[in-house]
Amino acid sequence: MDGSAVLHVLDLIGIFVFGITGALVGVRKKLDVFGIQVLALVTGLGGGFIRDVLIGQTPPAALRDWRYLVVPIVAGLLTFFLHPGIGRLERLVNLFDAAGLALFCVTGALKAIDFGLSPISAALLGVLSGIGGGVLRDVLSGRVPVVLRSEIYATPALLGAGIVVVAAALGYHASWVPIAAALACFGIRLLAIRRGWNAPLPRNP
Amino acid sequence: MDGSAVLHVLDLIGIFVFGITGALVGVRKKLDVFGIQVLALVTGLGGGFIRDVLIGQTPPAALRDWRYLVVPIVAGLLTFFLHPGIGRLERLVNLFDAAGLALFCVTGALKAIDFGLSPISAALLGVLSGIGGGVLRDVLSGRVPVVLRSEIYATPALLGAGIVVVAAALGYHASWVPIAAALACFGIRLLAIRRGWNAPLPRNP
Amino acid sequence: MDGSAVLHVLDLIGIFVFGITGALVGVRKKLDVFGIQVLALVTGLGGGFIRDVLIGQTPPAALRDWRYLVVPIVAGLLTFFLHPGIGRLERLVNLFDAAGLALFCVTGALKAIDFGLSPISAALLGVLSGIGGGVLRDVLSGRVPVVLRSEIYATPALLGAGIVVVAAALGYHASWVPIAAALACFGIRLLAIRRGWNAPLPRNP
Repeated sequence: MDGSAVLHVLDLIGIFVFGITGALVGVRKKLDVFGIQVLALVTGLGGGFIRDVLIGQTPPAALRDWRYLVVPIVAGLLTFFLHPGIGRLERLVNLFDAAGLALFCVTGALKAIDFGLSPISAALLGVLSGIGGGVLRDVLSGRVPVVLRSEIYATPALLGAGIVVVAAALGYHASWVPIAAALACFGIRLLAIRRGWNAPLPRNP
Repeated sequence: MDGSAVLHVLDLIGIFVFGITGALVGVRKKLDVFGIQVLALVTGLGGGFIRDVLIGQTPPAALRDWRYLVVPIVAGLLTFFLHPGIGRLERLVNLFDAAGLALFCVTGALKAIDFGLSPISAALLGVLSGIGGGVLRDVLSGRVPVVLRSEIYATPALLGAGIVVVAAALGYHASWVPIAAALACFGIRLLAIRRGWNAPLPRNP
Repeated sequence: MDGSAVLHVLDLIGIFVFGITGALVGVRKKLDVFGIQVLALVTGLGGGFIRDVLIGQTPPAALRDWRYLVVPIVAGLLTFFLHPGIGRLERLVNLFDAAGLALFCVTGALKAIDFGLSPISAALLGVLSGIGGGVLRDVLSGRVPVVLRSEIYATPALLGAGIVVVAAALGYHASWVPIAAALACFGIRLLAIRRGWNAPLPRNP
């Protein structure tokens, strides 16, 4: 499987898992089936829209390839019919959100490199792609964006994007690099949730 | 009147009615005259900005043609001076918002077809154009976005955009098609508000 | 120093002071060091991203030149370590926010003129660039956007952008024009805060 196909598959999986988080937040907010679909679409496609608009690839991939639209709709419908009890919702949102973050920070950085951005800019674009969908989901549904709550969130995304960027800068393009980078981001994000890791707070003078 | 002129006129009317809803929400939130103008501009132009940025037509139409700027400013000033009592505000917001939704879902889909997007993508872009201005208005003024509240909202927009897309796919380009599509969306949205139609809610396991 | 260099320097200073306001709001909301960095980046770069995407210059300047990324990160770190007591935070946010507004309304208008937009559109783009970063900061951190609160905010931005636009339309390109325009916007914004100037409110029928 070449690099472009890996990118495509990781992108679609990322859209799927982010779509699930949007739908789960919708279930939790007791939205109806259409509100849930809107949140699934916005959360699944938002990060990629921001990424593609910023690098100037318009219309974004999701508007040129119908498979990108089917994926979050299926994620939303599956969640609507199969979601678990309210008590377990937030844990599932965190789990799938970590997976989406990991996948999008990697695909965002890869795409930015393909478009000739410098390593630092590619890493930033990876982070923006990773956090974009979740920020839109949380702002639309009236939650404080997860990236601003007191947890390790942007850092693992920067790590995942950074691994991809450094590997590319060293001329190393094996297809397992993005997968390893995504796993590193995913693992650290989950550990941070499980262990309740917190970053330093500002001192209080 | 050819298709492009119809598109232009419907677009300007849509900006006008969305501008009114932004200004009315500003009046309701007791904003001053400048805050009201900002909400009128953002609500009137927001959906079109999102549409034009996503299809890659930048600068957006509203930045290349000064008439697009005058329309929401006039809408805001008229609303500031002539708005009714607070009690009737929300009903008027709903009425004009339904009109703006109907017009933008149609013009968004038409423009996407002109730019060569596939039918499914054109329909999605129509829905995004239709709901974009209202979402920005509600997020900026601290309301839950209307598209997420428990009412039929995105569905009539999808219907309106869908009629336009299907007609175009069948090679049928009569100038009454977008008008009929907008009326269908407008009518169903108003009926949904009047009758209190609700979409299915997720079950509660 | 030619016009392009003036634009560049004003842009970087604007990113720095907006970055400080984002970080100060983060300190006030008791975010951790990473949440504060995210707010500093979004607030510093947000207005420029909106400006560059709308005029079609993608990737935005901040993604093509690494200095644009270092500036808000430094602003965020300085604020994290050196911020004052909570009581004085809001006053400092207002001060730096006025400076950022003044600088961005001017650089936004200048850049729009360079890209061939009409005077009216260039003025609007200047206002959007000026208010964009602060709106993103306030929406993400759950505050009512400052542009909608009952104070003179969009008006001085329009004045600053207007001075630049009128001077350019008259063929006058001296490098002190943007600096004078930014000072005019800054001074009026500060006076409005100090004196508690308010714009007319809608009558209450």
